This record gives sequence, C-alpha cells and structure tokens, in this order.
Amino acid sequence: MTVLPMPSAHLHPLQAQMDQLGVAAKDAYRVLASAPTVKKNAALLAAATALRTDARVILLANAKDMEAGEQKGLTKAQLDRLMLDEARIEAMAKGLEAIVALEDPVGVILKDIARPNGLNISRVAVPLGVVGVIYEARPNVTVDAGALCLKSGNAVILRGGSESIHSSRALVDCMQRGLREAGLPEAAIQMVPTPDREAVGILLRMNEYVDVIVPRGGKSLTARVQNESRIPTFLHLDGNCHSYVHASAKPDLVCEVIVNAKMRRTGICGATESILVDASAAMTLLPPLLEALLKKGCEIRGDVATQSLNAAVKPATDEDWGTEYLDSIVSVKTVGGVEEAIAHINQYGSHHTDAILAEDAKAVDKFLREVDSAIVMHNTSTQFADGGEFGMGAEIGIATGRLHARGPVGLEQLVTYKYKVYGDGQVRP
Amino acid sequence: MTVLPMPSAHLHPLQAQMDQLGVAAKDAYRVLASAPTVKKNAALLAAATALRTDARVILLANAKDMEAGEQKGLTKAQLDRLMLDEARIEAMAKGLEAIVALEDPVGVILKDIARPNGLNISRVAVPLGVVGVIYEARPNVTVDAGALCLKSGNAVILRGGSESIHSSRALVDCMQRGLREAGLPEAAIQMVPTPDREAVGILLRMNEYVDVIVPRGGKSLTARVQNESRIPTFLHLDGNCHSYVHASAKPDLVCEVIVNAKMRRTGICGATESILVDASAAMTLLPPLLEALLKKGCEIRGDVATQSLNAAVKPATDEDWGTEYLDSIVSVKTVGGVEEAIAHINQYGSHHTDAILAEDAKAVDKFLREVDSAIVMHNTSTQFADGGEFGMGAEIGIATGRLHARGPVGLEQLVTYKYKVYGDGQVRP
Repeated sequence: MTVLPMPSAHLHPLQAQMDQLGVAAKDAYRVLASAPTVKKNAALLAAATALRTDARVILLANAKDMEAGEQKGLTKAQLDRLMLDEARIEAMAKGLEAIVALEDPVGVILKDIARPNGLNISRVAVPLGVVGVIYEARPNVTVDAGALCLKSGNAVILRGGSESIHSSRALVDCMQRGLREAGLPEAAIQMVPTPDREAVGILLRMNEYVDVIVPRGGKSLTARVQNESRIPTFLHLDGNCHSYVHASAKPDLVCEVIVNAKMRRTGICGATESILVDASAAMTLLPPLLEALLKKGCEIRGDVATQSLNAAVKPATDEDWGTEYLDSIVSVKTVGGVEEAIAHINQYGSHHTDAILAEDAKAVDKFLREVDSAIVMHNTSTQFADGGEFGMGAEIGIATGRLHARGPVGLEQLVTYKYKVYGDGQVRP
Repeated sequence: MTVLPMPSAHLHPLQAQMDQLGVAAKDAYRVLASAPTVKKNAALLAAATALRTDARVILLANAKDMEAGEQKGLTKAQLDRLMLDEARIEAMAKGLEAIVALEDPVGVILKDIARPNGLNISRVAVPLGVVGVIYEARPNVTVDAGALCLKSGNAVILRGGSESIHSSRALVDCMQRGLREAGLPEAAIQMVPTPDREAVGILLRMNEYVDVIVPRGGKSLTARVQNESRIPTFLHLDGNCHSYVHASAKPDLVCEVIVNAKMRRTGICGATESILVDASAAMTLLPPLLEALLKKGCEIRGDVATQSLNAAVKPATDEDWGTEYLDSIVSVKTVGGVEEAIAHINQYGSHHTDAILAEDAKAVDKFLREVDSAIVMHNTSTQFADGGEFGMGAEIGIATGRLHARGPVGLEQLVTYKYKVYGDGQVRP
C-alpha cells in the first residue's frame, strides 16, 4: 500500500518543500502518462519559442552565474561549460524541436502473446514515473533532460549544480511556460528549491515519489548516489575506454581510427584512454601509431615494450591502466593476444565502450562476446559511443550499469512496460 | 575501474567466505556467459537425473528439516511448504526438463540499427551477471531459481531460509553435479555457507560481485532488502490485487470471475483482496456476488453500502483497503465510477495486478491505461498473474518494481543487453 504521507509542518522545512515537490511530481506524472503525443509536442515547441523570446532574460541570469563562477575561481573549462550565448540558446531550442520529431515511446506494443485459453496479453511501453536528475554545471542539461522526460511521459525533478542556479531557473521557467501553454501541468518539470547538498540527500531517499535517479556528473557525485540512494539509478560511471589492436589489424586503419578515438575530443566519456596491442605485431603496428599520437600532442605512458619503441614514451604505472584521463594522455600496453586483452579490459575497464581493430573474424567475435561492456566495437572509433550516433536522437547519458538501461539512455530507455491482459470471462483452472 | 579485492584473512571469517563465493561466482559467470545452449541444457538434464537418483538422500535431508521445523513450532502451512516427497522431487525434475525446452534468451538480437555512415549496430541479449536470490522456506526455489539463472547464463548465489538448509544443500548438490557433468563450473550455482541473517547483510553489500538481488519472501525480508541493498533489486512486494466491477459488467461473468479471483487459491500474490463496485449498479450486481463468496466460506468486510445489502457483511476499516489478506477474506467498496476506482487502486494497491469487469470499451481503456500496475486485466481472473499462464514457461516471481523487470520474471527478464558496433574504419567527424 502506498498511501502518500502528507507534507507536515513539523518536518524540517527543506524536507517539507521536497515532499511537496514529490507530491506535485507524482500528480503531474499521472496526467502526463496519458497525455497525447500532440500535447507533449506542443509543450516542447512552446518551450522552444519561450527560449528564443526570453533569450535576453536567460543571458542575464547566466551572467550572474558567470560572475559568481569567476569569483569562486572556476577553471576556464568549467566557465566554458557554464557559459550561454545566443548560439547555445538557439541550439537548445533546436534540440527541443528535434525531440518533437522523435517517435513517442509511450504506448508502443513491445510484445503480443495469444494464449490457448483465449487470453490476449500485450506488453505495452509506459513511462517510468517520476525521474530525478542530478547534474553539475552545464545548464543545457536542464533543457535536454526536461524535454526527454516530458516526451516520454515522465515527470522530472531537476537538481542542477549551484554554479548554474540562475541559468537553470530561467530555463525551467521557459519549459514550464511551454507546459502551461499546452495545457499540461507545470509540475511535470520542477527544480529543487535550493542547490544545497542536503537537498540531494533528501531526493535520494524520496522513494515514495521518485522512481528513478539519473546522476550526471563526476566521480564524487556518482559515488554519493551509489551509497545513499534508496531509489533505482541509471549509473553513469566513468568511461575508461580501450582500443585493442589485434595482430591481424590493418596498419592504416589502426592509425586513423585510434587517433580519432583518442584525440577528436579528449573530454568525452567515449574517448579512448588505453591502447592494447598484440606483442607479436607491436614492432610493425605500434611505431607509426605512437608517432601519429605524439604529433597530435598526446602524452604516451607505456609498458616497457612500448617504451623501447619510442624515446618519448613515459613509463606507465599500474594506476594508469585504471585511469580515465579525459585529457591528451593515453596508456599503451602490449598483450599476448585477444584472451589477455579481454581479461585486462574486464579487470581495469569501466564497462563503457571498448573496441577491437582486427581482420581476424574469430578474434573479433570472441572480443565482442567476452568483453563485458555496454558497447563493444569492431574497426571503428570509441568516440561513436553516443545516443545521437546510434540514431536515438538525443540522450540523457551513457549508462554503465547493467539493468534496464545500458549504453545510451534515450527516449526508449526512459519507459518501462505494463501487461494488458484481455479476456472474455476466463477463470484459472 | 573494478579491480576485485582479494579475500583477506584479516577480514571477519564470514565476510572472507562470502568474498570467495563472489569471486568464484564472477569467474563462473564469465564461462557461463558464452556457454553454448547445448551445454547448459546438458547440465539441466543431468541435474534432473541427479534429483531422481538422489531422491532418497534428498528425502533424508528434508526429514531433518521437517523435524527441526516441528520442534521450532512452524505452522502446518509452513511445514507443508517445507515438505518434500517423491512426487515433489519428480515435479522439480520435470521443471528442469521444461526449462531445457525453453528458448535460450542469450544472444538474441533485440534490435538492428544501420547507420548512414555504414556502422551496423546490434542490441544483443547478454546475461545479467551474478544474481543473488534470497528466499524463505520453500526448498523448490533452490532448483527453480538455479535452473532459470543457469539457462540465462547467469551465475547465482542462493540464500535459502534456515528452515530448509539441509534440503537446499542436497538440492544444490544435484544441480552442481549437473554442471560438473556438462563441463561447466560448479560455482555457477552456489549457496551461502550459513543461513545466518548476517550473511544476508553481507550479500546485499557485495556490489563488486553481485549484479542483481532477487528477494522472494514476506514483508520483513523485502523491507530489509530495500533498506540495506547496495545492489539493484527485482522487488517482489505484496499483491494487494483489485477486481473492479463497472456498471456495464455482465452479472454472470462477474460472479464466476471474481469467485475464482478470490477463492481459487487465497495464498498466492495474484489473489484478489479487494472488490470495487460501481454504486449505480451495486443493487443488482453485488447481492449475487456476495452470496457466492459467502457460500464459498469467504469473510466479507464492506463499506456501509455493501453492509446494507447482506447482513453477513462485516464493517471494513480504512486499514482493510491496504491489506493483503492471503486468506478467505475480501474487502468490498462501492465507488462513483471508473475514475474513483482508478484513484483508489493507485492509492491503496501494490501495483501488482488489477482487473476491470466491464462491457463499456471506454471504461476498459481508461482503466487499463491509468491503473499504474505491472499487470492490468479485462474480464478475467487476477489469479492469471503468473509467468506460466503468460506463456513464459517458468518464473522466479512477479516483480512490482518499475525498472527492467515488471510483472513475471522469467528467462527473458534475466538478461540485459550490450551493443555490438561493426565498422570498417569509420571515424567520428
């Protein structure tokens, strides 16, 4: 039985506020769950219009965040993530329009079962319920996550970082205006009233109201969520991704693909952080690859065999094998073959994305089957680990947990299912 | 990075034993994950043979449990659940053979995505990993859960109740003999070394080794798992199931279906515990239904309107609406229509299984869409809430959580997926 406790004045004031948020979200979800696609799309389009109309208001709010960020001493990279301009606002508005174009995942019949006794059973996609999204500085997550949840019929409670509080509030205002104009409840997209860390702790325990938590942020946030959450979570751990070069690989393909996998953008979770190479082919395959990476400004930390091939290679320690650099650094290790490569990746990797470069079909098959990661690849760049590149349109992140959502979390992962059983008087014998 | 800590002699001895179990399970899972179907089936068939050959050994072990149970003062119903005889052992062996006949869920391609850049992406079913099953007295769960996990490529750590410890050990011996004879690692099916409650606490924190916890038992077990688990869980909460009689329902169908839904077996989670009836039709639809239930020996607790229709109806309190009796008792309430019925069920129900009896298509559609339960039914008995009745062959239970598995948990729910991406040198622009 799930009688919802009424928010009480005797509680800690923040707890009471959070409970109110929870009650409102649950109510909004009930409406949203059966809202027709046209209404949800109308809300998204109205929100896009609001973003464009309110661009100046949003930029003013963002200026406050930027000023506070500079005083706080945020790094240049952090400030760049926080910063909004006209082009970024237009990109968010376009993002909303792109989500309008995606298929509504709610109501899709996933399976039909006809039973000999005449019962007809359908497995039908339904929203998850209330989603809590906890994220850090990037204000665009406010819009992306809000829009994906809305389209998939979920209510969302957003908890952005304190750095982006003014920007996020201005963006949520636009989203709520969209909901209102489409005749949908504003509480479908809500923000935690305060960026206090305490609010996160309360949110993680609100299992009467919140059905799933999506954390998007660094290791300390993820660790906290793992330890404290009483609510199922789509974990986004780090991406310690590997590219493994099998002896049968084509030398040119190796260079082109791995330079892209490492250096296209070093700060994304799908970037390759570690290269494994068959020792038997290292003498021929590795020198041109090391040269190409060094030329691009990549620091290389290698095992003894790798060091012997190029004087610029620094020694790798055991810690390097488990490190996600998110920078122009890569670790390189020679291995005895596909078996050792698989064992190394399953031990040191983060079960995110790992690739094999090879022409030997047996080695490819073994690698793709036995590497225990959300995404395994053959002869291509780990930087393709992305919902958009998978044709999913937009994603909330890449889940590295095993249950429900694994890999890119898009609209299709933001729903669950129920069974509808149709009878005409059947009783169970 | 997930470097597995080595079990250390300095730890609490039970913790060290549990860690060893975890390491062995993870290793076994790696083998099982790529084991061919024929090998897994061979293990299941060899286990069935072992059950039959060892029937006497199993019965002796069970006799020890029964004796201890009687001394402990277990109820007759509890002793009946614990008791094994030749027929029940044969039923377990037949259950193993039935699982052999089911399709292997591992390796099934769930989705194919062809991208414009030539990448081919497959979403492929893979095992969950290591499953921890925590259950109470019934020894047959040892065999059912072990076999379902084995067929779906998962390693399993079983923690049965202390009452069935000797029986469960004898049954696990048979399952392990099956694994050995098929050339698969015995550690694919292991039992926690001691039935101490402490072992459950350790198991629930073994997130480096265990990927999902399946609790099967009463409310105190479920509550403990919800509070303590650091591992994702397929929750099996109570089944406070409703049958709602709409004004448009056929009187004969109402009587036949609801008597079955309530009284066929009162102790299963799919049994109806509460009946809702449209007030406008209560005068005609309710009296024959109340008579039929009373004739079957069912106690009825009703609201004022229901009490006025039959002198044998006892008054219901607010607590009754949220109670799963698992007994020959039912609560009955009149409602103002489908809207009120839905609100009542979403508030007091347990999101398990709820049915509408009606001929009005609009009311049916609204009920099936808006009742937020794993299984919603039209014109049939809630007692059909069962994996076997859904054509799934065998189930580990009915999940009432929302993520990954909802409703019956069979082979198809015991797998997750990974993405295999096939390229020929693509790099991300």
